[in-house]
Amino acid sequence: MKIVTFGEMMLRLTPLGTKRLVQADSFDAFYGGAEANVALSLALLGEEAVFATKLPDNALGDGAVAALRRWGVDTRGIVRGKGRLGLVFQERGADRRPDRTFYDREGSALSLASPSEFDWERLLAGADFLYFSGITPALGENVAGICIDACQAARKCGVQVAFDPNYRPGLWDLPEAAACMETVLSYVDILIANESQASALFGISYSPLAVDGDNVSDWGYETLAKALCKRFSVKAVALTERRTISAGINDFSAKYYDGRAFVSSPKYRMRVVDRVGSGDAFAAGLLFSLGRKTGLQEAINFAAAAGCLKHSIEGDVNLSRYEEILALAQKGAEETGRR
Amino acid sequence: MKIVTFGEMMLRLTPLGTKRLVQADSFDAFYGGAEANVALSLALLGEEAVFATKLPDNALGDGAVAALRRWGVDTRGIVRGKGRLGLVFQERGADRRPDRTFYDREGSALSLASPSEFDWERLLAGADFLYFSGITPALGENVAGICIDACQAARKCGVQVAFDPNYRPGLWDLPEAAACMETVLSYVDILIANESQASALFGISYSPLAVDGDNVSDWGYETLAKALCKRFSVKAVALTERRTISAGINDFSAKYYDGRAFVSSPKYRMRVVDRVGSGDAFAAGLLFSLGRKTGLQEAINFAAAAGCLKHSIEGDVNLSRYEEILALAQKGAEETGRR
Amino acid sequence: MKIVTFGEMMLRLTPLGTKRLVQADSFDAFYGGAEANVALSLALLGEEAVFATKLPDNALGDGAVAALRRWGVDTRGIVRGKGRLGLVFQERGADRRPDRTFYDREGSALSLASPSEFDWERLLAGADFLYFSGITPALGENVAGICIDACQAARKCGVQVAFDPNYRPGLWDLPEAAACMETVLSYVDILIANESQASALFGISYSPLAVDGDNVSDWGYETLAKALCKRFSVKAVALTERRTISAGINDFSAKYYDGRAFVSSPKYRMRVVDRVGSGDAFAAGLLFSLGRKTGLQEAINFAAAAGCLKHSIEGDVNLSRYEEILALAQKGAEETGRR
Amino acid sequence: MKIVTFGEMMLRLTPLGTKRLVQADSFDAFYGGAEANVALSLALLGEEAVFATKLPDNALGDGAVAALRRWGVDTRGIVRGKGRLGLVFQERGADRRPDRTFYDREGSALSLASPSEFDWERLLAGADFLYFSGITPALGENVAGICIDACQAARKCGVQVAFDPNYRPGLWDLPEAAACMETVLSYVDILIANESQASALFGISYSPLAVDGDNVSDWGYETLAKALCKRFSVKAVALTERRTISAGINDFSAKYYDGRAFVSSPKYRMRVVDRVGSGDAFAAGLLFSLGRKTGLQEAINFAAAAGCLKHSIEGDVNLSRYEEILALAQKGAEETGRR
Amino acid sequence: MKIVTFGEMMLRLTPLGTKRLVQADSFDAFYGGAEANVALSLALLGEEAVFATKLPDNALGDGAVAALRRWGVDTRGIVRGKGRLGLVFQERGADRRPDRTFYDREGSALSLASPSEFDWERLLAGADFLYFSGITPALGENVAGICIDACQAARKCGVQVAFDPNYRPGLWDLPEAAACMETVLSYVDILIANESQASALFGISYSPLAVDGDNVSDWGYETLAKALCKRFSVKAVALTERRTISAGINDFSAKYYDGRAFVSSPKYRMRVVDRVGSGDAFAAGLLFSLGRKTGLQEAINFAAAAGCLKHSIEGDVNLSRYEEILALAQKGAEETGRR
Amino acid sequence: MKIVTFGEMMLRLTPLGTKRLVQADSFDAFYGGAEANVALSLALLGEEAVFATKLPDNALGDGAVAALRRWGVDTRGIVRGKGRLGLVFQERGADRRPDRTFYDREGSALSLASPSEFDWERLLAGADFLYFSGITPALGENVAGICIDACQAARKCGVQVAFDPNYRPGLWDLPEAAACMETVLSYVDILIANESQASALFGISYSPLAVDGDNVSDWGYETLAKALCKRFSVKAVALTERRTISAGINDFSAKYYDGRAFVSSPKYRMRVVDRVGSGDAFAAGLLFSLGRKTGLQEAINFAAAAGCLKHSIEGDVNLSRYEEILALAQKGAEETGRR
Repeated sequence: MKIVTFGEMMLRLTPLGTKRLVQADSFDAFYGGAEANVALSLALLGEEAVFATKLPDNALGDGAVAALRRWGVDTRGIVRGKGRLGLVFQERGADRRPDRTFYDREGSALSLASPSEFDWERLLAGADFLYFSGITPALGENVAGICIDACQAARKCGVQVAFDPNYRPGLWDLPEAAACMETVLSYVDILIANESQASALFGISYSPLAVDGDNVSDWGYETLAKALCKRFSVKAVALTERRTISAGINDFSAKYYDGRAFVSSPKYRMRVVDRVGSGDAFAAGLLFSLGRKTGLQEAINFAAAAGCLKHSIEGDVNLSRYEEILALAQKGAEETGRR
Repeated sequence: MKIVTFGEMMLRLTPLGTKRLVQADSFDAFYGGAEANVALSLALLGEEAVFATKLPDNALGDGAVAALRRWGVDTRGIVRGKGRLGLVFQERGADRRPDRTFYDREGSALSLASPSEFDWERLLAGADFLYFSGITPALGENVAGICIDACQAARKCGVQVAFDPNYRPGLWDLPEAAACMETVLSYVDILIANESQASALFGISYSPLAVDGDNVSDWGYETLAKALCKRFSVKAVALTERRTISAGINDFSAKYYDGRAFVSSPKYRMRVVDRVGSGDAFAAGLLFSLGRKTGLQEAINFAAAAGCLKHSIEGDVNLSRYEEILALAQKGAEETGRR
Repeated sequence: MKIVTFGEMMLRLTPLGTKRLVQADSFDAFYGGAEANVALSLALLGEEAVFATKLPDNALGDGAVAALRRWGVDTRGIVRGKGRLGLVFQERGADRRPDRTFYDREGSALSLASPSEFDWERLLAGADFLYFSGITPALGENVAGICIDACQAARKCGVQVAFDPNYRPGLWDLPEAAACMETVLSYVDILIANESQASALFGISYSPLAVDGDNVSDWGYETLAKALCKRFSVKAVALTERRTISAGINDFSAKYYDGRAFVSSPKYRMRVVDRVGSGDAFAAGLLFSLGRKTGLQEAINFAAAAGCLKHSIEGDVNLSRYEEILALAQKGAEETGRR
Repeated sequence: MKIVTFGEMMLRLTPLGTKRLVQADSFDAFYGGAEANVALSLALLGEEAVFATKLPDNALGDGAVAALRRWGVDTRGIVRGKGRLGLVFQERGADRRPDRTFYDREGSALSLASPSEFDWERLLAGADFLYFSGITPALGENVAGICIDACQAARKCGVQVAFDPNYRPGLWDLPEAAACMETVLSYVDILIANESQASALFGISYSPLAVDGDNVSDWGYETLAKALCKRFSVKAVALTERRTISAGINDFSAKYYDGRAFVSSPKYRMRVVDRVGSGDAFAAGLLFSLGRKTGLQEAINFAAAAGCLKHSIEGDVNLSRYEEILALAQKGAEETGRR
Repeated sequence: MKIVTFGEMMLRLTPLGTKRLVQADSFDAFYGGAEANVALSLALLGEEAVFATKLPDNALGDGAVAALRRWGVDTRGIVRGKGRLGLVFQERGADRRPDRTFYDREGSALSLASPSEFDWERLLAGADFLYFSGITPALGENVAGICIDACQAARKCGVQVAFDPNYRPGLWDLPEAAACMETVLSYVDILIANESQASALFGISYSPLAVDGDNVSDWGYETLAKALCKRFSVKAVALTERRTISAGINDFSAKYYDGRAFVSSPKYRMRVVDRVGSGDAFAAGLLFSLGRKTGLQEAINFAAAAGCLKHSIEGDVNLSRYEEILALAQKGAEETGRR
Repeated sequence: MKIVTFGEMMLRLTPLGTKRLVQADSFDAFYGGAEANVALSLALLGEEAVFATKLPDNALGDGAVAALRRWGVDTRGIVRGKGRLGLVFQERGADRRPDRTFYDREGSALSLASPSEFDWERLLAGADFLYFSGITPALGENVAGICIDACQAARKCGVQVAFDPNYRPGLWDLPEAAACMETVLSYVDILIANESQASALFGISYSPLAVDGDNVSDWGYETLAKALCKRFSVKAVALTERRTISAGINDFSAKYYDGRAFVSSPKYRMRVVDRVGSGDAFAAGLLFSLGRKTGLQEAINFAAAAGCLKHSIEGDVNLSRYEEILALAQKGAEETGRR
């Protein structure tokens, strides 16, 4: 399988341990980004993963390329040039003190890119999937245009498009975001979302009758998935569900609807080491399973297990091996069955 | 609002992570002390906070001053001179292995101070509160005398006195402590205490009928608060309640009685990062609310949230912002209401 | 009391924090080994503890000796010579990602040792116990032979033999292991084991009727202990029971049968800092109590508390003091009694 | 003495030890900036030091304020608002590999400031000196305008102006810089410069006859100082001389001409720990001496010793005490005299 | 240009800072090996670099592959299978205490490899150079056989062979080594060596008349190079010269003779950060220059500058950019010319 | 050989790297003390080394014992009881910024010891040497008394006494110190000193004619040694000579006069890692050589090499092996011979 992802890569700076930003005198540094993380996960699973982006022509740009190559991502589609590397300052929360994140990404190299710098037909040749999230078009009209170019090339080359809206209020206005996503979604085959995004962007949610306290029934998710599927004429919809109990404890599960059947993964209560990149690990696990054409239930279980395991790993990248993810997927399914 | 606190500052030395003292080959170092921490919290909340003490004339004394100034405490009332900086060696526990602390504070600069070194009327000019804990008079008769000087000046200047008995058996005998505190309490407006201190020092506790296993009813705390209020003719009593489930898990809540009404905060079960200074963060949150004249319930909720959040922060200082404490106070209250 | 233990010592290399081996660019290093850990625990409890082994004649061998001496183990019985120091690479798991360990111990100095290098009668003179685990004879026929020499000398000198089968599939085949252990067990007085080992090696387990979900009744363990006692004519059997809830949460308890009475320790649910060496801490706690001739219940409670506390300490060595273990043993017993 | 400095503060991020940026996975972080460093040095010497700037309204802005307050700088003149905190990525060189630095400061809060945000007459009230470097006007026309405002207010209030051109090619073009500095210099009393800046900006150098290999005679510096003095009608000129032998070894010395006399400091060959802020430490040492009205030779010796000592201290701030600087100034002078 | 290198990769474990092995409780870890380092340097210079080896099928093997990919080496020629990853324990010396290194590499995966696992004609297709050092054939007769296979394939494919004898007494006997190298050298085009190796292995040295104290004249090196050239019928000989002044200070220079002309690089006195891999950086710099067909003097200057810069970089890999090496090569040449 | 040393052990706290005390937020911790270091060196050289002291009955006291045992010192002569562990705060200098040290040792356990706690005849049984420095009697009259007890017992048991005055102005007055040392010296066989101590305490120096700039001739040292020998009727005098070029560069050499012959070691210019304990390493090296009865020249060369090597090792303990010291002693002697 070959997959191409497209997006921005940033340097995440995190005070050591659970120190606060204001008291930090050193930072751990992680290169990452939603689409880069998806490519990294797939490369680690043994697939051909191509990451397309534009990076600055400085040592941090070199560092980002090295971080991708280290785990086997094909970086030959990366353009280098003017601009900065975007930064994310993040302090790890603890107990009732939530994680705090602020972005410092204006003027990034990708946000200054022009469409002519990406030859999508060459990049997508032989690919099975194109993946990007809603963060990429949010970087500017030029980048949104490059996304549409990529989608059109994907359609032309018979490459399926997977997309996660990932709406970030800090990057653009809701109406602008919704309008852009409508256009993008007209090219999308597989939509990866969650209820809060669907609700905020498109006004689509589950029935209030499906909600019982903090729990939402599978029926609720199924109707939500079907509504999204119909509304945007996508082939399939994946939904993740996260509940933040505290900074250190989260619940995570996922659902998948392929236009015919609806399946639901085990729900994992997790002690979080680093939640950054867990949604990307899920997306990668899903595309991996779809590429391998496993059964639907196996697919959503594998994807949810991939997302769950990422929470136990420091950094943006899901350094789990195929066998490890599979083992958890099977164990999780057993435990669910037993209940 | 202006507040003046008076007490000793020490250097806390803690082996990295959960290492034991006996195996430590390096130490994290934190400057702190009950009254310094209260001043630091209030400075971080934007109030004028003055800390009075005596510090040695060496690099550790300089470090202590810098630690106070860093977060905005007014250090002009600090006397420098002979003596040592007190030390606290503390090993962080884990699971069933409790924290271990031992003090090495004999001969500290403050314990050698003389009353003439502090000009209380100048220090307290324009202040709303004077705060100190029972550790300060425990440092010696001379220091107890300085405390009484401060209290008398406070009465003269119309400054309210807040006091936390904070009895430490290692520092003085119980009869000596009780006698001294009786004197101090004759000047106190706001008493901050807990049941074990009240019981040990003054023989005042809640009714055994208020206890059900590990839980004590609000009625129990109310009668305890009233008893203390009456016994010492203080205007108000704040009570904290802590239960140590393990080294890493604690329960924390607080009560407040102002002579008329009794209010009770939400109870927080917390995963502890560093519990040092949490009582001080509570005291600061309470004084802050009293200074702002919020409602009683808001006051105890804010104070308890401040105490709770401190547990998630490394070091002695509650580096939480006003908005963060308020958000937890409101969220905690909602959750309690829902139960 | 004097105890002699015999086995291999290794250097454990662990990526910092919860990093994975594949991403590690530095390692924490701990010298340890089952029998060395037992000797270290006993030396820390104030007993005369002799550790016999062979170590390479290089800086790592010197480091191993220093690690033993640091806490008071008598290292004069250690032979130095050719070969390597065995290594263990271990990554700490987190949440659903389990610990991963792989051994790199082939060609170790002890595995190349010859019987003539150990003068057992001299080493065992005046000793109360000889202890080793099944890892030692697994290192090779020559080392198995040295174990038998030691056992025979122990019998001759009136030294009791304590043994933990500790079967490791990576070191030898099951039939080979079972055969060797049969021979060893003919010299053993006190057998320390668990159900999975008893079942795998000797086909001895508890009745299925004793199992209720994840719980096994004391009756079940008692019958297992009696069966082992009878099968191998040992004087006493200690059984440990561990359940791994996640990488960070484990349950731990223990049982003891002395041929007459059966006792059971409190069960501890623990948040794990480092589980390496916890079984060894248990064994040491048991031998310590037997040497002091405390009551059976006190003995198993002390041993289980020692094992429990080790989980809260970084490194292989149980750096708990006698008073600390005793305090937990008494507290655990009280809590159990109350339920 | 009171001094007011005005400029930008940044966060410097440096890979640990001598690691290169491209391989860094963590960074040491230091808040600093030329004018902030001058204020910090003077506060540490016990003077009243006010730092004026604009900082972003986020945790990094808070961190910058805390870094100033920690050593006693008056931060009440700091405006908070929109924009970023500028960043400097710096890798420490070693031996023949020089330090590498790149700036990421576009869009900083100060560069977005407007003149109305600074009330110079209030800030400068009672001050002896206003100090800023050429980096400040280089941040934009608006900031250059604020600098002129400050200069005019200084003239009005009888405050002397000290200025270091500090031309940075990355920030502005040479003609633009030279033109702006001409204007600034019409307000300047004390010019702090070096030959390479004087030559690049104003075409003023020493006579080639003053140069002998790597050495320049005092006569050469004297003529250069006089030329600058005359050209810009300043009262005094200070010149520093640095020679980079390798990344870790530098030579440093300074000269001073007050319109009448010319003095020259000892020359120091230094093993460099961190050279950032050494020019600022020199400037602060000079202003301190001028404020104390020591003799000229004492002044330049003290200033050069301050600059030299900074090289031995990690971070941007010269954490040397008055006595320490004085001791080196005297020792350096003695050694020079003896030669 | 394409280059293929073949050899063993190891994990180097080094106590932090200048700690000794015996006191180490943590280690920095670096993956490297002579031939891997050459490939890494060339990949960083932008060339196509293929590294062939056999690595164990475990996490350390994965880590080694990731370390190669990170900087762009083509790892598709790497075989995975049974065996260990070799280890090197190294303590950094300081001043008069020299570095100490010991190898723990027996049973490594490559030492267990069989010739059929390497398809040399495919690996070498289109390559300009094959490179390996004498460590590779020293790993065992099977590996020596693989080396000869590689050489024969190189000759068949028109690929030049570059070789560095790198005799290590711990790995094989001198006669055995000399005999094997004779065979290897019959295939070699470019021999990279130093005097001590040439003397020990082949009894070829410079004239005693060329030696003056610690200095050897260029004439001496030229006769040595010519002797080696003639003796083994190689096209060219490169010689490095290192003098260890102390653990932290080394001199380094190089010579090159291409059968016609002899050239000599500047000599660098260096303050050493990490000398591991400096010879490999030199070899890579030389092959890079030969591939680019620069002039001889440029080639040896570039190679020596590459070797020099490596000493300033932590880890095995020369993370210097082309421009940086070139700048030092030119500066070094200028300085030499001036003397 | 058996040696007994007697003195105080402290915990040295040092900010990481070259940070200043005032900015430190963590400390490296080293247990040490002059006499403990001598015992540790001798134990590492394979001799029987007994250390006598009194330590507090807390975790730091336990840590001190463990630090001694780790390298083989016999700790059975250590008394445990009331008091503190003395502390030394030390900041590492750099370049022209010298090391700064301050002691916080008042009230240490040893300073509170009483003579009856030490059974010198038992401790000294079979010993060859008793060693202590002038720091020990400086701790108080009681401790000075214990020193005299030890000396008298030594005389009785035929044990030679080695003594280093090591006068510390912070601990006692000069007249008091001189008087006490006179008494001690009446028992001393081997006096280890340097010129500045001899001059300050006893007014004995070398002839001014022996001084040429920074160099002092051997003749000068010989007359000094003879004067000391005669003045105190000691059998032998060892003199060390240290010159502090900068914080990081020191010169070190030593002389020895045995009443007949005078010998002088090579002079070492050293790049210093950690100079603490280098004098102790010298003393240990000297006693070791005297115990082995090597020639005088060998003895002083070995001792000086031991002192030199210590400067390259982090911590108080000279972790050099016999072979390493010998190698440097021989190399240093050769180099000196060649000059």
